[in-house]
Amino acid sequence: MDPLNFTHILTQAVDELSESKSYQGLFHQHKDGEPLPSARVLCEIIELARAIIFPGYFGNSTINSRTITYHIGVNTEKLFNLLSDQILSGLCFASGPDCDCCTDSKREEAGRLSAQFISRMPELRRILATDVVAAYNGDPAAESIGEVISCYPAIKAISNYRIAHELLKLGVPLIPRIITEMAHSETGIDIHPAAKIGEYFTIDHGTGVVIGATSIIGNHVKIYQGVTLGAKSFPLDDDGKPIKGIARHPILEDNVIVYSNATILGRITIGKDATVGGNIWVTEDVPVGARIVQPTAKK
Amino acid sequence: MDPLNFTHILTQAVDELSESKSYQGLFHQHKDGEPLPSARVLCEIIELARAIIFPGYFGNSTINSRTITYHIGVNTEKLFNLLSDQILSGLCFASGPDCDCCTDSKREEAGRLSAQFISRMPELRRILATDVVAAYNGDPAAESIGEVISCYPAIKAISNYRIAHELLKLGVPLIPRIITEMAHSETGIDIHPAAKIGEYFTIDHGTGVVIGATSIIGNHVKIYQGVTLGAKSFPLDDDGKPIKGIARHPILEDNVIVYSNATILGRITIGKDATVGGNIWVTEDVPVGARIVQPTAKK
Amino acid sequence: MDPLNFTHILTQAVDELSESKSYQGLFHQHKDGEPLPSARVLCEIIELARAIIFPGYFGNSTINSRTITYHIGVNTEKLFNLLSDQILSGLCFASGPDCDCCTDSKREEAGRLSAQFISRMPELRRILATDVVAAYNGDPAAESIGEVISCYPAIKAISNYRIAHELLKLGVPLIPRIITEMAHSETGIDIHPAAKIGEYFTIDHGTGVVIGATSIIGNHVKIYQGVTLGAKSFPLDDDGKPIKGIARHPILEDNVIVYSNATILGRITIGKDATVGGNIWVTEDVPVGARIVQPTAKK
Amino acid sequence: MDPLNFTHILTQAVDELSESKSYQGLFHQHKDGEPLPSARVLCEIIELARAIIFPGYFGNSTINSRTITYHIGVNTEKLFNLLSDQILSGLCFASGPDCDCCTDSKREEAGRLSAQFISRMPELRRILATDVVAAYNGDPAAESIGEVISCYPAIKAISNYRIAHELLKLGVPLIPRIITEMAHSETGIDIHPAAKIGEYFTIDHGTGVVIGATSIIGNHVKIYQGVTLGAKSFPLDDDGKPIKGIARHPILEDNVIVYSNATILGRITIGKDATVGGNIWVTEDVPVGARIVQPTAKK
Amino acid sequence: MDPLNFTHILTQAVDELSESKSYQGLFHQHKDGEPLPSARVLCEIIELARAIIFPGYFGNSTINSRTITYHIGVNTEKLFNLLSDQILSGLCFASGPDCDCCTDSKREEAGRLSAQFISRMPELRRILATDVVAAYNGDPAAESIGEVISCYPAIKAISNYRIAHELLKLGVPLIPRIITEMAHSETGIDIHPAAKIGEYFTIDHGTGVVIGATSIIGNHVKIYQGVTLGAKSFPLDDDGKPIKGIARHPILEDNVIVYSNATILGRITIGKDATVGGNIWVTEDVPVGARIVQPTAKK
Amino acid sequence: MDPLNFTHILTQAVDELSESKSYQGLFHQHKDGEPLPSARVLCEIIELARAIIFPGYFGNSTINSRTITYHIGVNTEKLFNLLSDQILSGLCFASGPDCDCCTDSKREEAGRLSAQFISRMPELRRILATDVVAAYNGDPAAESIGEVISCYPAIKAISNYRIAHELLKLGVPLIPRIITEMAHSETGIDIHPAAKIGEYFTIDHGTGVVIGATSIIGNHVKIYQGVTLGAKSFPLDDDGKPIKGIARHPILEDNVIVYSNATILGRITIGKDATVGGNIWVTEDVPVGARIVQPTAKK
Repeated sequence: MDPLNFTHILTQAVDELSESKSYQGLFHQHKDGEPLPSARVLCEIIELARAIIFPGYFGNSTINSRTITYHIGVNTEKLFNLLSDQILSGLCFASGPDCDCCTDSKREEAGRLSAQFISRMPELRRILATDVVAAYNGDPAAESIGEVISCYPAIKAISNYRIAHELLKLGVPLIPRIITEMAHSETGIDIHPAAKIGEYFTIDHGTGVVIGATSIIGNHVKIYQGVTLGAKSFPLDDDGKPIKGIARHPILEDNVIVYSNATILGRITIGKDATVGGNIWVTEDVPVGARIVQPTAKK
Repeated sequence: MDPLNFTHILTQAVDELSESKSYQGLFHQHKDGEPLPSARVLCEIIELARAIIFPGYFGNSTINSRTITYHIGVNTEKLFNLLSDQILSGLCFASGPDCDCCTDSKREEAGRLSAQFISRMPELRRILATDVVAAYNGDPAAESIGEVISCYPAIKAISNYRIAHELLKLGVPLIPRIITEMAHSETGIDIHPAAKIGEYFTIDHGTGVVIGATSIIGNHVKIYQGVTLGAKSFPLDDDGKPIKGIARHPILEDNVIVYSNATILGRITIGKDATVGGNIWVTEDVPVGARIVQPTAKK
Repeated sequence: MDPLNFTHILTQAVDELSESKSYQGLFHQHKDGEPLPSARVLCEIIELARAIIFPGYFGNSTINSRTITYHIGVNTEKLFNLLSDQILSGLCFASGPDCDCCTDSKREEAGRLSAQFISRMPELRRILATDVVAAYNGDPAAESIGEVISCYPAIKAISNYRIAHELLKLGVPLIPRIITEMAHSETGIDIHPAAKIGEYFTIDHGTGVVIGATSIIGNHVKIYQGVTLGAKSFPLDDDGKPIKGIARHPILEDNVIVYSNATILGRITIGKDATVGGNIWVTEDVPVGARIVQPTAKK
Repeated sequence: MDPLNFTHILTQAVDELSESKSYQGLFHQHKDGEPLPSARVLCEIIELARAIIFPGYFGNSTINSRTITYHIGVNTEKLFNLLSDQILSGLCFASGPDCDCCTDSKREEAGRLSAQFISRMPELRRILATDVVAAYNGDPAAESIGEVISCYPAIKAISNYRIAHELLKLGVPLIPRIITEMAHSETGIDIHPAAKIGEYFTIDHGTGVVIGATSIIGNHVKIYQGVTLGAKSFPLDDDGKPIKGIARHPILEDNVIVYSNATILGRITIGKDATVGGNIWVTEDVPVGARIVQPTAKK
Repeated sequence: MDPLNFTHILTQAVDELSESKSYQGLFHQHKDGEPLPSARVLCEIIELARAIIFPGYFGNSTINSRTITYHIGVNTEKLFNLLSDQILSGLCFASGPDCDCCTDSKREEAGRLSAQFISRMPELRRILATDVVAAYNGDPAAESIGEVISCYPAIKAISNYRIAHELLKLGVPLIPRIITEMAHSETGIDIHPAAKIGEYFTIDHGTGVVIGATSIIGNHVKIYQGVTLGAKSFPLDDDGKPIKGIARHPILEDNVIVYSNATILGRITIGKDATVGGNIWVTEDVPVGARIVQPTAKK
Repeated sequence: MDPLNFTHILTQAVDELSESKSYQGLFHQHKDGEPLPSARVLCEIIELARAIIFPGYFGNSTINSRTITYHIGVNTEKLFNLLSDQILSGLCFASGPDCDCCTDSKREEAGRLSAQFISRMPELRRILATDVVAAYNGDPAAESIGEVISCYPAIKAISNYRIAHELLKLGVPLIPRIITEMAHSETGIDIHPAAKIGEYFTIDHGTGVVIGATSIIGNHVKIYQGVTLGAKSFPLDDDGKPIKGIARHPILEDNVIVYSNATILGRITIGKDATVGGNIWVTEDVPVGARIVQPTAKK
C-alpha cells in the first residue's frame, strides 16, 4: 500500500464524515460570531474569580495590602469582559440555530448578567469564607487556613459550585454545568449547579462525591469521599424519557454528617444532627439526631 | 554548608543515579529515532478525533455546513500524520531493544494501521451517537444533546475507550492503554481498552467506575459512579505471577443497570434486564430480569 | 443599562472586595520576594523527578546509556534550583507575616534541604522500583514493565507520595501536601504525605483511595480502588476543634490485601496476610491471616 | 530604605501616571468591545495569507495536491474571521471616541471588506508570482525558486506591501500601515502601503530601503539595499505643519534599476530603462535609458 | 557509520567543548542565584513600560478612564518586581566572579534603583509625548497621533533609548545596552544609551541610524534613515587598545536636520538650525544655519 | 450582503486558489514525511549552538564549572537530533519531487553530516573567540567581553554565518541560507554563507551590511554599518538569466578597514592594510596600505 493509497483512504473517510447524514445530531452549526462557550476561557474565568476571592493565594502571589485594589480592579475588569463574552455564547447556544441572536441587544443582556454576577462576588466571598473555616475545623490534618485554601480539593469544588450556582440563578444557560464539570474533573467531586447548599459546608477528600440537581443541603453539613446524593428512580413521560425538573434528590438538614461511600437516594430527608455511616444505602427518611450504620461484616 | 558543597552533593547524586545498576529496569533506552509514544501528542490526537466526530462542539467552533469539509479534511490529515508517528513509536517500543525496527517497512506498517483506523471513523461516530442518545435519555438533568456532548464525562471516557478499542483491535501496542488512562485521569472512569461494549452505553457521573479487560457489555447498559466490573482472583503461574489473558471479568447482558458503588467480580453473567443495587458485592450470576439490593442498614 | 453603568457596578464591587474587612482570613500578604509555593513550578519539579528516576520514560525520551549522565546531571541541577526556591517559599509561608524571613540564612537553609532531598533520590528510586514490580506482578492485564511505568496511575500517585514524604521528613512545610494533592487530582488517589508506607506497595485502578496522615502500611500490601484508610472520630479540644497529631488511622501489616471500596477506620490493625473484602466497613482489629467479606446481597 | 518605602514610591508614581493631565494625548480610551487592532493577530493574518498564497512553503508544510483544498479552505476561513475582527477594530479606531460605532452595521461592513479582500487573493497570488520570478532571475546566488520563496526578505516585504495595499484600496484604516511596519521590522525594508508598484518587482538584500507613500513604480523594476525613494521637502500649512496628501515621491518607469544606497528625492521621474548608480543623491528627472553614477573617490 | 559511531563523535565533541581551556573567556560562571540579565524578561519590562506610558495603545487595550488606575497600578508593580531582579543580575554581573554579591544588601540596592526608575516615569512620559508630537508633525504621511504611537519605529527606538538612558544615569550596568540593542534589532535604529538627546526628537524611517555613545543632541532635531553620528578615529593606549570614555561623537544643536545616509564623524558641532544633506560625509564643524549637500552626480 | 454571501465569496476564492494552474510554481508538494526545513526549529538549533559555544551567556545561565559537562552534553545531543532532522528535510528538498528520497539511507546520510558538523564545533568556538576579541578591542564603548558576547549584533551575525558556512562546506542544501537570513532579520547584517572570512573579523553597528556569496575576507578585517561587498554586474546566459557561480564579489586582504556606507563592487582586491572611507563607491582595486575617501561636500 503506497502513500497515494493512504491519501485515497483519507479523502474517502473525509467525504463520508462530511455527509450531513453522518454528522446529524452531533454537529453544532454556528452563525457568524456565535461560538460555543469555551472550556479554556471558562477555566481562565475561574482562575480570575479565585484570585479575586482569595487574594494572594491564587493569581499574582506578590500582592500586598497597599496594592490590592490594583490587582482586584484589573482582575475584576478582565473577569467582566471574559464572562460577558461567554454568557453571550451561552445565550446564543440556548436560542438554537434559527434565532437571529448575536445582536446588539443580546450583547447588552450578556453584559448586564456579567455585571450582576460581579456585584454578587462580595457575598460569594463571605460564604466561601465559612466553607474554609468548616474545612479547617473539620480536619485534624489541616495545619493552617492557608493550606486549606491553597490545596484542599473541597475548596476548589465548592468555589466552582457557588460560582456556577450564582450564574444559574441569573438564568445563564450551559455555562454553570461546564464550570461544575471542570471541578469534577479536577477533584472527582460532582456537584450539580442547581443544588442548594448552606453555609459552612465541607467535603473531606471528596473523590467520588455526587450531589444531584435537586438536592438541598443545610448549614454546617459535612460529607466524605464517595458519598452520593442521588435519585432513586424517575418518572418517565409517554415517550419513555425521564420527566425533567421533578424534585428527586435528598434534603440534608443542618449539621448532618455523611461518612464515606454512603449512598442516599430519592427525595428523602436526613434530619438535623443525623449521622449516616459509611458504605450504606439509604432510601428512606432518617430522623433528627439519628445515627445509622452498616451491618457488621462477616469474618 | 557553602554552595560548593551543594554542588558536591549534586554531582555525587548524579553519579549514583547514572550507574547502570541503579537504573536497571527503570530505564528505557532508545535507538535513534525511536521515541516512546508521547502523552502530549496522544492528547492532541484525541482532541482531533473529537473535533472530527462532533464537529462544532470540539476544535474550531465556528464551523458551518458549507465549510465543514475543509475542517474535517484538515483535521483528518493531521490525525493521520500524528497517529502514524505514534503507532510507529508504539511498534518500536513493543519490539524491544534488540530489533532493528525503525526501518522503512515499519514506517509503512504504521501508516497502514493509521489509515485503517481513519477508515473506521464513520462507524465510530455512528456508535458514539447512540451513546450520546443514551446519556441524554438517561438523565433528567440533561437539558440538551449539546450539553451532553460538550460536558458529560461519560462521553469523554466512552469516546476515548472506543478509539482505544479500535486501535487495540488493529494490533497497536501500548497506545490504547495510554488513551484510556488519559480519560481515567480526566473523568475518574477507568475502562480497559480490551473490554467489549455494545451500543447505547452510558455511565452516570462516573467517578470511580472500573471496567476490566475481559468484561463484555451488551447494548443499552447503564452504570453509575463507583461501579467495579473486576476480577475475583486470578490463577498464578509457577513463578507465582498472574497468568495473563484469562477471561476473568463479568458479562453484562442487554439492558442491565448497575447502581452506584456496586462491585461485580469474576467471570459471572448479569442476565438481560437485570438491576444491581448500589454498594453491593456480587460474585455470582444474576438471573435475567432479577433485581438485587443491599441488606437494610441498622439504625 | 449602558456601558458606563457596568463600569460603575465594577468599580463598586472592586471597592467592596478591596476592603480589608471583606478579605480578612482569605488574604495572603507577602513581603518582597516571598511568594507562595507555586503549583506550576511544583508540577515541573515532579516531572523532573520522574525523568531522573525513570530515565527514558519521562522527560527527554531519546536518552541512551552513553549520554544518560548528561541528562540526569542537567535535570538534577534544575531540580535543585527549582526546589530550593520552592522550599524557601514554603519556609517563609510557615514563618507567618511578622518574621523577617527571606534573609540570606533562610536561603542557605532552603538550599541545604534541597540538596539533602537530592542525596536521597537514589534510595527513592530503589524503593519505587519495588512498587513497579508489585504493580506489574499484581495485574494480569499489565503487558510490560514499560506500560506500568508509563501509564499506571498507581505509579504516579506513589511517586508523588514518596517524594512528598521525604520532604516532609526533612521538615519542609506545605509543599508535601501540595504535591500529594497534585497526584490526587491527576489519579483520584489521595495519600497523605505523613503516612508511612513500606516497599512493594501497589494500588489497582485507584480512583477514590484515601490513605490518612497517621496510617502505617507494611511491605507487599495491595489495595484496590475506593479503599479508605480513615479516622473513625477524633477528640476535640476545649474549643470544639479537633486535636491535631493524634494517631487515628489504621495499621496494615505486611502482605495485606484490601478490595475495592472497603472502608477501614480508626487506629486498628489489619494483621499480616489478612484480606479485607470489598464494600465493607471495618472499625475493629482484623487478626493475622483473616479474611473478612460483606454479608450476602438480597435478591 | 525599607520595602514599605518602595511601595510608597510605587503608589505615588501610579497616582501621578493615572492623572488625566499626565496621559493626555498618549491614551487610547476604548468603549466596550472596541479594542485596537492587535499586532499579534495581524501577524497571524500575514502567516495565514502566506500559507494560502505559497502553499507548502508556509503554514502546514505536509500539504499535497489531493488535500490542498482542505488546507486552503480552513486557512481562508480563519483569515476571514480574524481579518473581519481586525477591520472592525480599525474602523472603530478611525471613527474616534465619540461615535457609537461597534454596532451590528459596522460589524457587517467589516465582514464585507474582509470578504472583498479574500476575493482578490487569486489576483494577489498571480502578481506575487511575478515578483518571485524577478527575484530568482535577478540573483545569481539564488539556487531555486523554493529558496527565494522561503527565505528572501524581498518576498516577505513585497507580500506584506501587496496585502496592505489591497486593504488600503478598500479603505481599511490603520491596519495597512501596521502590516508594512511588521515587514519593515522583519526585513529592514520600509514600503508605504499607499505606494503603487507594478509587476516583476524585486529588491536585492533590502536593508534600509525606503519607498514613500506617493511613489509610483512601473514593471520590471529592481532596487538594491539602502535605496531611498523619498520626499525632498514638503509644503507647510499655516500652522507650520506639513500638508498631507501631496504627490512628493519619485516615479520609476519600467525596467529601472537603482543601485545600493542611492537616494532619489521629490516628485521626479526616472525614465524607462534608466540606471541609477549607488550612493548618489538624485533630485532631478533622469531621462529614459540614462545611466548616472557617483563621482570618483579620492585616493 | 552506525548510530553508536554518532554517539562516539558526540561524546568526544562534548569532552573537548567541556575542557576549561576551550571555553576560557567565552564562559560566564555563576554562583547560586546570580543569573545573567535575561533578554526575555527585559523584553517584558519594555512592554510593561510602554503599557504604562501609552495606556490603551500597548498592553491591555480595553482600558478606560475609570479603570486606568488599576491597570497602571498592576503594571507598575510588576515592572518594579521584574526590574529589581534584573538590576540585581546586572549588579552581580558587573561585580565579577569573586565578590560575594547576591546578599541582602545588594538586593536592597537593586530594589532602591528600581523604585527610583519608577519615580522618574512621569517625567519620561512627558518627554516621550514631545517626541510623538515631533514625529506626527514631521511626517505628511502620518494620519493620526494614534498611528504614530502604535506603529512608528522611531517611537519604539526612542522609548527604549530614554528608558535605557535613565537606567544608565542610575548606574545600572549592562542592562541599558541590552535594551537599546533590542530596539536596534526591532527597528534597525542603534542609539547608544549614553547619548544625550533633547526633547521633540524624531527619526524618519530609521533603518541604519547609528547614534554613538558620546553624542549630544539638542531639542527639535530630526534625522533620517541611514544617518551615522560616529567616531572618526580614537586614540589607542599603550597596548594598542582604544581608550574608553573620550568624547568622540558629534554635537547636534537645536533644530538640526540630517538627511538620509549622511555620515557625521568625530567631536564636531553641527550648529543650530543647520541642515545636512543626504549621502554625505561630514568630519568638520558645520556653522549655525548652514546647509551642506552632496556634489552633483555624473550622468 | 448577508453572512451566507460571505460564505459564498469564501468558497469561490477557495476554489480558485486550489486550482493547480493558480498555484503552479508557488506550491511545494511533499511526499509523506518530507517537510521543508523549519525556521522555528533552525532558530532553536542556533540557540543551542550559541549555548554550547558561549556557555553561561546563552541557554541555561546558572551553569558552573562543575556541571558544565552535563549542560554541554544535553545541548549537543539535542542539537544533533534536531539538526539531523533538518538536514534530512534539506536533502529531500534539494532532491526534487520525483526522487524517492526519505529512505533509511538518506536518514543515515543526514545523521553523518550532523555528526560531522558537531565534530567541528570546538574549532568553530576557537574562531568565534577571535571575533569576540576583535569586537571588544575595536569598540571604545564596549565595557566588557561579557557585554560584547551577550548583546553585540556582530557576534550574532558572525556566529550564524560561521555555523552556516560549515554546513555549506559539508554540502547541506538550503539550510545555510535560512540561517544567515535569520541573522539578517535580527541584525540587519546580510552575510552570504558561501563567503570566506578569516579570523578576528568584526562589524561595528552593522545594520545594512551586505557581504556577497563569492567575497573573500582576510584576518583582522573590520567593517562598519551599511557597507556593501557586492557584484558590479554579472554575465547573462543565452536566456538572459544570470550565470550562477562566477566569482563576482571583492577580496579584502588582512587588516582592511571599511567605513560606513561604503560600496565595494566587483571582483576587485582591497589590498592589505588599506582603508576605505565612508559613503563611497569603489569598483577598482585599492593598493596595499592605501586610504581612499569621499570628495568634500559642498556647503
